[in-house]
Amino acid sequence: MALKETHITLAHGNGGRFMRELIDDLFAARLGNTVLDTSLDAASIPSLPAGVLVVTTDGFTVQPLEFPGGNIGSLAVHGTINDLAVSGAVPHYLTLNAFIEEGTEIALLERLIDAMAQAARDSQVSVVAGDTKVMPRGQADGVYFATTGFGVRPHTLELGMPHVRAGDRILVSGTVGDHGAAVLLAREEFGFHGDLRSDSASVLDAAQALCKIPGLRFMRDPTRGGLATVANEMARATSLCVRLQEDAIPISEPVQSVCELLGYDPLYLASEGRLVAVVATEAADQALVALRNTNTEARLIGELTDEPAQVIMQTELGGERVLEELEEDPLPRIC
Amino acid sequence: MALKETHITLAHGNGGRFMRELIDDLFAARLGNTVLDTSLDAASIPSLPAGVLVVTTDGFTVQPLEFPGGNIGSLAVHGTINDLAVSGAVPHYLTLNAFIEEGTEIALLERLIDAMAQAARDSQVSVVAGDTKVMPRGQADGVYFATTGFGVRPHTLELGMPHVRAGDRILVSGTVGDHGAAVLLAREEFGFHGDLRSDSASVLDAAQALCKIPGLRFMRDPTRGGLATVANEMARATSLCVRLQEDAIPISEPVQSVCELLGYDPLYLASEGRLVAVVATEAADQALVALRNTNTEARLIGELTDEPAQVIMQTELGGERVLEELEEDPLPRIC
Repeated sequence: MALKETHITLAHGNGGRFMRELIDDLFAARLGNTVLDTSLDAASIPSLPAGVLVVTTDGFTVQPLEFPGGNIGSLAVHGTINDLAVSGAVPHYLTLNAFIEEGTEIALLERLIDAMAQAARDSQVSVVAGDTKVMPRGQADGVYFATTGFGVRPHTLELGMPHVRAGDRILVSGTVGDHGAAVLLAREEFGFHGDLRSDSASVLDAAQALCKIPGLRFMRDPTRGGLATVANEMARATSLCVRLQEDAIPISEPVQSVCELLGYDPLYLASEGRLVAVVATEAADQALVALRNTNTEARLIGELTDEPAQVIMQTELGGERVLEELEEDPLPRIC
Repeated sequence: MALKETHITLAHGNGGRFMRELIDDLFAARLGNTVLDTSLDAASIPSLPAGVLVVTTDGFTVQPLEFPGGNIGSLAVHGTINDLAVSGAVPHYLTLNAFIEEGTEIALLERLIDAMAQAARDSQVSVVAGDTKVMPRGQADGVYFATTGFGVRPHTLELGMPHVRAGDRILVSGTVGDHGAAVLLAREEFGFHGDLRSDSASVLDAAQALCKIPGLRFMRDPTRGGLATVANEMARATSLCVRLQEDAIPISEPVQSVCELLGYDPLYLASEGRLVAVVATEAADQALVALRNTNTEARLIGELTDEPAQVIMQTELGGERVLEELEEDPLPRIC
């Protein structure tokens, strides 16, 4: 690491030598690959596999920047990879924008970009282009990232809400709410620590396993707003009723405890390494087996019915309650 | 416009109804196209023309957000389009990230996105995916944008600094420094106004005209750091001497006056609608004609020689001075 400063200064954004050092020694040294060339205005992408080119983009402003199980760097890779994965695509390339606050510790930035690089390597994606801006002290809250991802989906794969039918089954690939609960505790506003870890991870393996199964209709990752929000989006888009079984939804013991203590509903807390899938009835068993091969906590959690469009939770005691659409975000800045 | 509020609130970023209205009524209503679907996590791109896929990304934090000749919305389109254009590609699609400060006037945002949409239409590019984040008051300085662009370059086109040879000629597609000078005046720190307009525009026509000419070696848009910075990058990358003719470099009268008055050198001020090109000696005349067809101010401004790598300005009186690499940015936040 040739950067001699310990903190980011405005000179790291001025287009001169400091900026070149920041980009080459901190970013490119960690993220480097055969496509990334910091002397060029644009990256030339080697030929992609046959299929439909799929693109997505997301901004990341999580606070705190580091939390048990990840940081804003790994999250910015997983978040964008997962949006591609649930669309049925295999992610190949990312671009990165960084807005960095003057005064940010360079050692912190190194940890963020290390985690980003590791997450990208683990998922075999390359960061092929980037841009950094340094903002005056007081702006940008440390770091904001934006990542744009490119992937390829088979021409033959047709997924989406319009394919969902009454009778279809709903699955989740693991416990829900872990990321939201971990970030909540990491804020230390409540004066206690826990052993909660974010589930931030790629869902590509789970998504690809499901894509092999005829009868897969739709996938989505339950990030901001959690499982309850994905369920409400499904009800609104399909005009069907989403019926969930409370006792089937996997929630880890520590997440359940923290939520009870602090008054949060884990069904509205973000996951960052899970997917929700809708499959035809006859494909449900095969889909569950496929998901359990990637995570033993995967569960069949509900179905869609011809009743009026809303989300109904069937409780363990045989009762029913409606899971309303979120009006107020219970936990801002979680991604 | 169905948005009932007049200013952005944190609720516009919370994932609920307000956010859906912001995205659908403000962004999608203006930027909408057949690919953009705000209900999906990722956009499927219709088949692209044959060639090399080229990708670039850039962040925009200009202050003020609006200036004569453009705003941060049009700039965010032109900046990314131009990075693709000077790489020899035709831009096709953009993605957009917006980081918006709580309290920002919605009418201002509408003007920014209107200008963005107009710039995209003018260049026949579509915004196919986006993400918005609302940041607490005091952060993000109104608005930051990041745009990622992708386009296609012919397989047969090989451009870049490694192709540059001693004897090659240097051209510029129009007057330099207009954007930097216009933003400078728009800041009103100097207590006077002028009739300067930013040159913010697409350089695609000029770039495509040059791409037809055998002997084209390299193009770049002289944004932050201006013409002098592009010249220094060329000297450093090629280990050649860049010789520029002072009396050949087109600078508008108002830009020259403002720079003399305020002590700026227009050669270090950004253009946002110009390109610098290097061509083989024998292609220089044809390249100049091609550029003049797009802008009568286009000029042949210098050449590369086998002397030691630096940038030498030959003055009108026959003298020489070295144009040094920028250490301090004379004018931050211009793009």
